[in-house]
Amino acid sequence: MWQATEDVLEAVAIGAGILGTGGGGNPYIGRLRARQAMRRWGPVSVMAPEEVPEDARVICVGGIGAPTVGIEKVRDLQSYHALRAIEEFTGEEATALISNEIGGSNSVEVMIAAAKAGLPIVDADGMGRAFPEFQMKTFFVYGVPFCPMAIADEKGNSIIIRETITPAWAERLARAATIQMGCVACYAVAPMSAEQVRTTAVPNTLTLARDLGNAVMQAHDTGDDPLQAILGTCPGRILFSGKVVDLDRRTTGGFARGTLAIDGLDDFARQRMVIDFQNENLIARVDGEIVCTVPDLICAVTTDGGEPVTTELMRYGLRVTILGFPAPALWTTPQGLHESGPRHFGYDTDYIPLQVAAD
Amino acid sequence: MWQATEDVLEAVAIGAGILGTGGGGNPYIGRLRARQAMRRWGPVSVMAPEEVPEDARVICVGGIGAPTVGIEKVRDLQSYHALRAIEEFTGEEATALISNEIGGSNSVEVMIAAAKAGLPIVDADGMGRAFPEFQMKTFFVYGVPFCPMAIADEKGNSIIIRETITPAWAERLARAATIQMGCVACYAVAPMSAEQVRTTAVPNTLTLARDLGNAVMQAHDTGDDPLQAILGTCPGRILFSGKVVDLDRRTTGGFARGTLAIDGLDDFARQRMVIDFQNENLIARVDGEIVCTVPDLICAVTTDGGEPVTTELMRYGLRVTILGFPAPALWTTPQGLHESGPRHFGYDTDYIPLQVAAD
Repeated sequence: MWQATEDVLEAVAIGAGILGTGGGGNPYIGRLRARQAMRRWGPVSVMAPEEVPEDARVICVGGIGAPTVGIEKVRDLQSYHALRAIEEFTGEEATALISNEIGGSNSVEVMIAAAKAGLPIVDADGMGRAFPEFQMKTFFVYGVPFCPMAIADEKGNSIIIRETITPAWAERLARAATIQMGCVACYAVAPMSAEQVRTTAVPNTLTLARDLGNAVMQAHDTGDDPLQAILGTCPGRILFSGKVVDLDRRTTGGFARGTLAIDGLDDFARQRMVIDFQNENLIARVDGEIVCTVPDLICAVTTDGGEPVTTELMRYGLRVTILGFPAPALWTTPQGLHESGPRHFGYDTDYIPLQVAAD
Repeated sequence: MWQATEDVLEAVAIGAGILGTGGGGNPYIGRLRARQAMRRWGPVSVMAPEEVPEDARVICVGGIGAPTVGIEKVRDLQSYHALRAIEEFTGEEATALISNEIGGSNSVEVMIAAAKAGLPIVDADGMGRAFPEFQMKTFFVYGVPFCPMAIADEKGNSIIIRETITPAWAERLARAATIQMGCVACYAVAPMSAEQVRTTAVPNTLTLARDLGNAVMQAHDTGDDPLQAILGTCPGRILFSGKVVDLDRRTTGGFARGTLAIDGLDDFARQRMVIDFQNENLIARVDGEIVCTVPDLICAVTTDGGEPVTTELMRYGLRVTILGFPAPALWTTPQGLHESGPRHFGYDTDYIPLQVAAD
């Protein structure tokens, strides 16, 4: 058990920004909101998955929508309202909360609800990264019911998705409501047991986000290479490095979708990487050849600072380095890939695991 | 108290088709579905509003969507599923049901849920006609809460709209879910008291629909003029008569929207009526001059048979007569007109009550 105080938020924001693979919501705004919540209601206790009491009822909360809108439309206490709505619907009170996805501002959205409710959070999440669609959670892949869920906006509107025939239908109805609510909302899912958390969540991801952020900040202080600091904390590799030369980004269907082109510099001179994204980076090609796909992590960071560049902040001229990290093991099983692999996103290609050299 | 048996369905379908002002769902398909339900589960008892027991819990059920889709996508037991969903959510069991709108198939949608659930229905509804949007109900105009409501589709998906800041937000979220569900769904609203039913519902409208239908059928048998039979049952007047010469109808935003042009015949020769509709007929102009607007009823019937022509069945070449009926009194108060008058639908004109000559 450790305390998430105001002091860890900067590190978490950097680490979660990297793990967000472009999405998950703007980490800086998330950090400001979490800081405000902690100043008002105090710090949040963080439990390791193995510390979750046997009789715990753990509610997953998080944001849904387009990150391009999330930087303009602040979320207030939506995640707390969604929590209370699902508690009322199920008649069960949460004893702990868990993040939907560690990536981006969703790493701290859970802290805002937890601070307000006075509940601990679990050091784990449903992705170990960020994914664009509601049903893309390891919880649901491994048998946790995806309904009922509550969705709330900042205005005072809330709905319950009571029952759907498939997880994709839950996403479809949730997305439609989110679009009406202004393209950003928060949700909460019916409680999980301690056993479900331990067997279906991606563990220790808040610690990983914090450690990644600390590594970057420490490199800034010591003058070390922040990219190597990142790769020393989380095994992965540099996929590409260069300058953003094209960006086609549209907010459509409740997502930020588009394509990003980077012209290589230094080792990558005279090559071009193109990345397709749907909130998150889905597939990266160099000169037409696939080099990395979901569920592996395709992460853009600034080349000089190692700081994450999320989808909504990406822009022409930025010097970025694209890092690749292997997906959490829960995503690379056949059932995991069914929900998160390139074919799920409409690409006619199999998942080829990213090769990372052993130290 | 009377029994709605299979035998009354034909008359109800005709009368509700007329009162539907173009919308409310296809009456013929509604009739077939209600017949099937009655054959399976028996007839439905109909209570006058004054017969509703003091401790009654009355749940409003109905369909939502575009009638153009409703003739292709059958509803199954959606209204029953929505009923059970709202009962579960509120923890209250219905002791009677009430129709959302008497117009079109919604006059009998309530019978399907009632037959399956073994419940009586109230001889009343929330409109005394049909209107396109969820919040357009006399119940809500006069203080009945518009939330929570349940929406269910035929596939097994259901949501609860738990709380919204305005009735229009309930409509907005309900419409978005309905579009995802395939543009036709059914809903049920939290229970009303007997007092609420008696003070906010439009009374005796099922009886009116039945009597209108019987008048038309009797005129067919006796060779009398069916149009005069209609006007003899429900005071109103002939607004126009002619041939449909143009129809611009699109299914958009969860509604059937468009415009209908009729070239006059006989007394109306050399004149043209144009009607705008959003599921229901909203405003009728003759040679550019407004002759009738919502909330008054603008009803298209076949000129030779007096049978209703609903929005989804309207077509080029039909000989139709347009009848006008004054709106139920609950709609013509300032608060009623606020929800149902021409300005609500975007027309820059005040409501001018239809003048009907006294007998």
